Amino acid sequence: MKFAVTITLKKDVLDPQGKVVGQTLKNIGIGNLNSIRQGKFFEIDLDESDSTKGEAKVREMCEKLLANQIIEDFQIKKI
Amino acid sequence: MKFAVTITLKKDVLDPQGKVVGQTLKNIGIGNLNSIRQGKFFEIDLDESDSTKGEAKVREMCEKLLANQIIEDFQIKKI
Repeated sequence: MKFAVTITLKKDVLDPQGKVVGQTLKNIGIGNLNSIRQGKFFEIDLDESDSTKGEAKVREMCEKLLANQIIEDFQIKKI
Repeated sequence: MKFAVTITLKKDVLDPQGKVVGQTLKNIGIGNLNSIRQGKFFEIDLDESDSTKGEAKVREMCEKLLANQIIEDFQIKKI
């Protein structure tokens, strides 16, 4: 069973990496950009057939290791 | 108009960062893991009302800057 996890900075947390990417996009002539924010993405393949249990496992991974919940939010999606 | 872009390593490209994360998850006692692969995520807010034009713009960003198409695939989704 596969899950996709996206981890993004909370709305009020500064994203210097995203700022640099946004500035670079402007420099190479791609305009129309209001904002760009960067995050992390994980594709997790679990040996688990129950989707509720699987999601709980992935949530545990996020809480214990993948995301820093002080500054980041995470989203789990079955794929 | 907002777009979500996920950039992942192509299937046959080694992902050392993902390997480390997978090993760490095992070390802290979270098993059942077949594989985990890490990628990048971008949330892009465009000043554009036409969704076809917007997606073309985002595709241009991916091709010119965000993704290295030799080793990476990208996926664009309107959000």
